[in-house]
Amino acid sequence: MITLSSDFKSPYPAAMKGVIASRCDARMIDISHEFSRHNVREAAFWLTQIIPWFPPAVHLVVVDPGVGTSRRAIVVSVGDHSFVGPDNGVLIPVASVLGSDEEVEVYGIPSRESESSTFHGRDVFAPMAAALTTESINELVADERLFPIDEYESLRLPSARTKGTSIVGEVLVVDGFGNVITNIPEEALSVPIGKNVLVNGTEIPFLRTYGERSREQPLVTIGSHNNIELAVREGRGDEFFELSPKDEVRIEWEES
Amino acid sequence: MITLSSDFKSPYPAAMKGVIASRCDARMIDISHEFSRHNVREAAFWLTQIIPWFPPAVHLVVVDPGVGTSRRAIVVSVGDHSFVGPDNGVLIPVASVLGSDEEVEVYGIPSRESESSTFHGRDVFAPMAAALTTESINELVADERLFPIDEYESLRLPSARTKGTSIVGEVLVVDGFGNVITNIPEEALSVPIGKNVLVNGTEIPFLRTYGERSREQPLVTIGSHNNIELAVREGRGDEFFELSPKDEVRIEWEES
Amino acid sequence: MITLSSDFKSPYPAAMKGVIASRCDARMIDISHEFSRHNVREAAFWLTQIIPWFPPAVHLVVVDPGVGTSRRAIVVSVGDHSFVGPDNGVLIPVASVLGSDEEVEVYGIPSRESESSTFHGRDVFAPMAAALTTESINELVADERLFPIDEYESLRLPSARTKGTSIVGEVLVVDGFGNVITNIPEEALSVPIGKNVLVNGTEIPFLRTYGERSREQPLVTIGSHNNIELAVREGRGDEFFELSPKDEVRIEWEES
Repeated sequence: MITLSSDFKSPYPAAMKGVIASRCDARMIDISHEFSRHNVREAAFWLTQIIPWFPPAVHLVVVDPGVGTSRRAIVVSVGDHSFVGPDNGVLIPVASVLGSDEEVEVYGIPSRESESSTFHGRDVFAPMAAALTTESINELVADERLFPIDEYESLRLPSARTKGTSIVGEVLVVDGFGNVITNIPEEALSVPIGKNVLVNGTEIPFLRTYGERSREQPLVTIGSHNNIELAVREGRGDEFFELSPKDEVRIEWEES
Repeated sequence: MITLSSDFKSPYPAAMKGVIASRCDARMIDISHEFSRHNVREAAFWLTQIIPWFPPAVHLVVVDPGVGTSRRAIVVSVGDHSFVGPDNGVLIPVASVLGSDEEVEVYGIPSRESESSTFHGRDVFAPMAAALTTESINELVADERLFPIDEYESLRLPSARTKGTSIVGEVLVVDGFGNVITNIPEEALSVPIGKNVLVNGTEIPFLRTYGERSREQPLVTIGSHNNIELAVREGRGDEFFELSPKDEVRIEWEES
Repeated sequence: MITLSSDFKSPYPAAMKGVIASRCDARMIDISHEFSRHNVREAAFWLTQIIPWFPPAVHLVVVDPGVGTSRRAIVVSVGDHSFVGPDNGVLIPVASVLGSDEEVEVYGIPSRESESSTFHGRDVFAPMAAALTTESINELVADERLFPIDEYESLRLPSARTKGTSIVGEVLVVDGFGNVITNIPEEALSVPIGKNVLVNGTEIPFLRTYGERSREQPLVTIGSHNNIELAVREGRGDEFFELSPKDEVRIEWEES
């Protein structure tokens, strides 16, 4: 099984699928091709939320602002999963979710003259994804199609800081509905469900779910990712809270 | 085979696919993940148009404004098809197309503490869809994973009313091209092709197909769903006719 | 294997998939359903870029401004590939990429009374695509489900004209990122990488890749399709260059 993720929209992902279908019979499942263009951090976050629900697979990921520069193409192996994509950190957070640092192995893909300088997804990553469904990493290393590397770009999604009855985090991503997903983990907010908190100074109820709020009213809730989410029922949280990715989010509450 | 329908856009549907792929080998086919958010009626309409073209399958449907409230999760069985989704009526019109009232059976899914309160598509419906591809409903009832229920939310798409040489209906949905799809069935309009009719007072030709009209000109036609459709060739019917879902559509014609 | 291409957006393609899945077990892969509505030339261009990466397959293509008129439904056979779609030229450029003129064979699909006049993708093309995965063209001709034809609509993507140290071409398509894809082939520009050229009078550097330019700066580059592309790194080339499909692009350079 090969999953495909990119910021390509349509129709470029189909060229990668053609290359894969020409080389192996692996089933292909799209994660998304709608990631924000060149937004490595957003893609890295979504991968941590979605890939762990999959059985062992090869994951092809192309969010690659540095395509055509000297950034390396890499394979990241962790447990029974492997990832193919650019060496810009996008593959690292999800690998860290799937295994310990010791279990994460990183390999470089030698670059060849013949490849397109603008479409590595089709010319470099897709052939390697197909190869990983039929050959072991050891075989690919023996064939000099992969080589072990020790240094690679890392990426750590930022952590929130708690201080007594307040916590300061930031916006990781805004989803397609305008829900503002923060980096504040559920357990950091020691507030009973139903109480009000201050979000950047505005009083908002902390509720278990959208359904407990009236339409078009704001709420603080716990998203399916177990992070604190700022939302508006049947409306856009990003507009109500005036928040974009990387903006600071400060949540304060009364001691209970 | 499992079909997937939702108002999730991207990338949330991929988490449901991961859960399904972890539990069974069923083929997955997307119906749409672009349904208007929380619009139960629109989704119900599209399902009646599309699902009947499929062979027997399990259909996972998540258009669920009440997620996290006490609304039930249900399975609807009709003939060789089964549906998994929320008990808000979205599954009922398509079930009525596939079989008679006597053939439609509805089951509840017991709720469990461990499930996310915001992503039942991933945590409740997807596991049940996978189960339905390998286990019979009787087995799932015996295992207390389903229980028969008699009462559930219904939903009836509205009917048009004919009165002599006029008919009053309403807009069901506007498709992605701006075509206005009404609830007026083809046979209700006893007008020869080529004649003009009055649409909310404006004279418009009734034609067999877009191709018979000049570019950017309005027409009344019969859509692929056999309902009357208000369209503009290579343009947007919703803008020309100034119509949105649930708006009234009155069509009048001269006695022939 | 069946690939699917259309300008249908969502959810109409799913009805075609239902018809196919009811008739055969062929794997289905979407090329795109986001082609610009009724833009035959754009779709024809993208097919030439993407289909050649696929193994032998049946390709269902519906970009069909003439649906419901007397335009024919056709099958185009070339080598081990076959195409099903409207007789409006959209299938021809990709067929010419896959084989010589002598290898391209075109067949008509007899029209039947029962078919919808607005959704040939579902009622005419999808059943034929399914049939082509299990029956040979000779069998379909013997069954009178296909008949050989000699005349059909052609479509030739326009060529650029070189004159000394200048070349005049035009915009073929603008992709989803705003990159302006021209009909000027890579080899027509005899300019060393790194030099400046004049694009419709404005001096722009000719670079190997986006990564060599600063953010939001314009460049002339070679796209993955081997045509000259006008782009802005992490921005929209169509807005910077003020160019749309069919607009003239004149590139001039100094003799080296």
